[in-house]
Amino acid sequence: MRLSRFFLPILKENPKEAEIVSHRLMLRAGMLRQEAAGIYAWLPLGFKVLKKIEQIVREEQNRAGALELLMPTLQLADLWRESGRYDAYGPEMLRISDRHKRELLYGPTNEEMITDIFRAYVKSYRNLPLNLYHIQWKFRDEQRPRFGVMRGREFLMKDAYSFDLDEAGARRAYNKMFVAYLRTFARMGLKGIPMRAETGPIGGDLSHEFIVLAETGESGVYCDRDVLDLPIPPASVDYDGDLTPIIKQWTSLYAATEDVHDGARFEAEVPEERRLHTRGIEVGQIFYFGTKYSEPMKALVAGPDGAEVTIHGGSYGVGVSRLAGAIIEACHDDAGIKWPEEVAPFRAVILNLKQGGSDTDAACEQLYRDLLAKGVDVLYDDTEQRAGGKFATADLIGIPWQIMVGPKSLAEGKVEVKTRSDGARQMMSPADVVARLGGGTVAG
Amino acid sequence: MRLSRFFLPILKENPKEAEIVSHRLMLRAGMLRQEAAGIYAWLPLGFKVLKKIEQIVREEQNRAGALELLMPTLQLADLWRESGRYDAYGPEMLRISDRHKRELLYGPTNEEMITDIFRAYVKSYRNLPLNLYHIQWKFRDEQRPRFGVMRGREFLMKDAYSFDLDEAGARRAYNKMFVAYLRTFARMGLKGIPMRAETGPIGGDLSHEFIVLAETGESGVYCDRDVLDLPIPPASVDYDGDLTPIIKQWTSLYAATEDVHDGARFEAEVPEERRLHTRGIEVGQIFYFGTKYSEPMKALVAGPDGAEVTIHGGSYGVGVSRLAGAIIEACHDDAGIKWPEEVAPFRAVILNLKQGGSDTDAACEQLYRDLLAKGVDVLYDDTEQRAGGKFATADLIGIPWQIMVGPKSLAEGKVEVKTRSDGARQMMSPADVVARLGGGTVAG
Repeated sequence: MRLSRFFLPILKENPKEAEIVSHRLMLRAGMLRQEAAGIYAWLPLGFKVLKKIEQIVREEQNRAGALELLMPTLQLADLWRESGRYDAYGPEMLRISDRHKRELLYGPTNEEMITDIFRAYVKSYRNLPLNLYHIQWKFRDEQRPRFGVMRGREFLMKDAYSFDLDEAGARRAYNKMFVAYLRTFARMGLKGIPMRAETGPIGGDLSHEFIVLAETGESGVYCDRDVLDLPIPPASVDYDGDLTPIIKQWTSLYAATEDVHDGARFEAEVPEERRLHTRGIEVGQIFYFGTKYSEPMKALVAGPDGAEVTIHGGSYGVGVSRLAGAIIEACHDDAGIKWPEEVAPFRAVILNLKQGGSDTDAACEQLYRDLLAKGVDVLYDDTEQRAGGKFATADLIGIPWQIMVGPKSLAEGKVEVKTRSDGARQMMSPADVVARLGGGTVAG
Repeated sequence: MRLSRFFLPILKENPKEAEIVSHRLMLRAGMLRQEAAGIYAWLPLGFKVLKKIEQIVREEQNRAGALELLMPTLQLADLWRESGRYDAYGPEMLRISDRHKRELLYGPTNEEMITDIFRAYVKSYRNLPLNLYHIQWKFRDEQRPRFGVMRGREFLMKDAYSFDLDEAGARRAYNKMFVAYLRTFARMGLKGIPMRAETGPIGGDLSHEFIVLAETGESGVYCDRDVLDLPIPPASVDYDGDLTPIIKQWTSLYAATEDVHDGARFEAEVPEERRLHTRGIEVGQIFYFGTKYSEPMKALVAGPDGAEVTIHGGSYGVGVSRLAGAIIEACHDDAGIKWPEEVAPFRAVILNLKQGGSDTDAACEQLYRDLLAKGVDVLYDDTEQRAGGKFATADLIGIPWQIMVGPKSLAEGKVEVKTRSDGARQMMSPADVVARLGGGTVAG
């Protein structure tokens, strides 16, 4: 993509309304625009990040055997009366009346609707286990939306729902999502630590929140430092096999949000030098809730002996839009965002340090074409901005690889390559840049 | 995907509520479930089709130089008061009040919001031309929603918005979208014929609807039969070049919806044997509306001479969810859907005609693995259903390539391959099937 043809409205000033760094940087980097309190438009740069996050979430859900569908944003109020949550949900539910005065609501979550879909079609234990998920916009009418996409009202969530014949089956489904979440957040360059948590309005008696540690996080958390270094299950993990060793490894070390924190246990189990008390951002939460929805909504299947069985369920959420903010909270410096490669809006940016110079222009064009041909998602800063401005923009928007093409080094057949994550710089030939980023080998 | 692990709730009976064939087939094939009047959940098979349609739309928008972003579903009422459409829109607009009694609405289209985004950031002619699009759920509170996704209330639309300095620029933007639409529908296996059309509530003085001919269509259309055989611009079309020859070629032949039909002109211009009067389904519409939104909303940029210029705009819609229905209306027979390959939920299906037989099971497993390894999106019907049921399901869900693995032909080293589009059958070795579908060469 040529920057001269892209839509990247960089803000020079720090927006006053932004209280935290991710919100500030998303606005400054031209990723986001507020359309109403807690309601945002994702501008092209932000949209690219959102799509990359979404795709990682999707791939790991699919790998774990979950099936994607798509439920609508609006739901019938009557469905929520069946579970008893229509009245219980309170003012955070956006209630809507259509032209025929039918009561609708903008879904804040989908336990009721998916249970309704399940009971309409699934009649036998032979169709279990089943895990259905979707990635769809939700709405929660927060009293005080703030922190940009971290606590928005209209937000993108992945929510999966599992259906099993009994608690043992439901726990296997829970474990699959537990493992999928470990992989999901790790692929985004995050340490998403599973912590015992309250179940809240979803209900149930088993729940973990996945927390990214950050000083700006909304929750206090307590954990054993060793949990930060546990190994992430590989892509080849066998989801049909026994996952309990992985679960045991992760849950045997103390990690809890402040809501369920047990100070005495913390001190008894964790040696003082490994005790970590900090703050964190919740990026996912998983629940086992048994028959909480299947019982009132009569989601029954015929069991192996023909008798009807009330299914056991769980639900599994990932805050997809929130993750864009969480990643920035975890990955930034004073100059701007430092995207992990897997979620970066572009993998590389070419900075033409002398726009209009025939040598630099030609070298940049060639490099741009060569990188595109290798499948590298590259931005070419071909604007008239001076070099200093191009450096600042590249740092602000956080592209992992910055390729600086200036007349002096070019005369020696080199360009300067800076990695945004550590600021390291090296001189390379354009051919080596293409080989390095395009997956080939770098000439020795 | 193994069918035993997929969620494909086939309906045996014809659903009473479905008045047209696409709605009936989408329900029967387990693609769709109604959640409220005109509001649907896309079950896994339907979701896969929706994503493939969306991706084709996206690729052709990007090829034409449009930039993707994502605006929220909810909008502030005040924005629509600026254009004067808040009151004008009438009962089809779903109006919402939040917990603080702020007036919101579920966006039926986005001219106001995108104009607001534009005016916030773009100040100079140097940033033009610009075309921004998104693919987002919209809501129109139809008095009588019907025909499934063909006239739903919550529907997925691609809407693009162009911004240019003057009418000449806006017409170039219009022509780009015109060409992109020709390619978009052709890639889906459809003939999407551009026809002169009314501008309706979007306004403006130039508009084309893209119409798929179908007896079940909602609009009467009149056209010169020769328009059906015009060539589609290739992927290599130069969007920065002069597109007027393509536009002239397509607009010089008579083609109009009944709303703007001119009987006298039709008879004067079109020889009797080429006159076609039939019905059609609108799958896209493009508008040039000049300063209709930029004038009241003050979307101005500094022109080359420094004076402020009111920008000229156009908008360009594709009914993404509606297309799933339109494709079925155009591609089906009595047995079910006949998906064009580019939008098929799976490209091939393996039918194990003797599930549990060691030879057929082994051959199917091998074929399944080999096709997956070649990147073929394949469904394996490994259920206990009898052969006749598997044939019926494969025809109903419309998978383009059916690979039937039975004990007799397998003893001779062959499987039977049926193409759903024409019903043609041939015997092939499994290796040839893999070569044929995997893009290699077929032996012999």
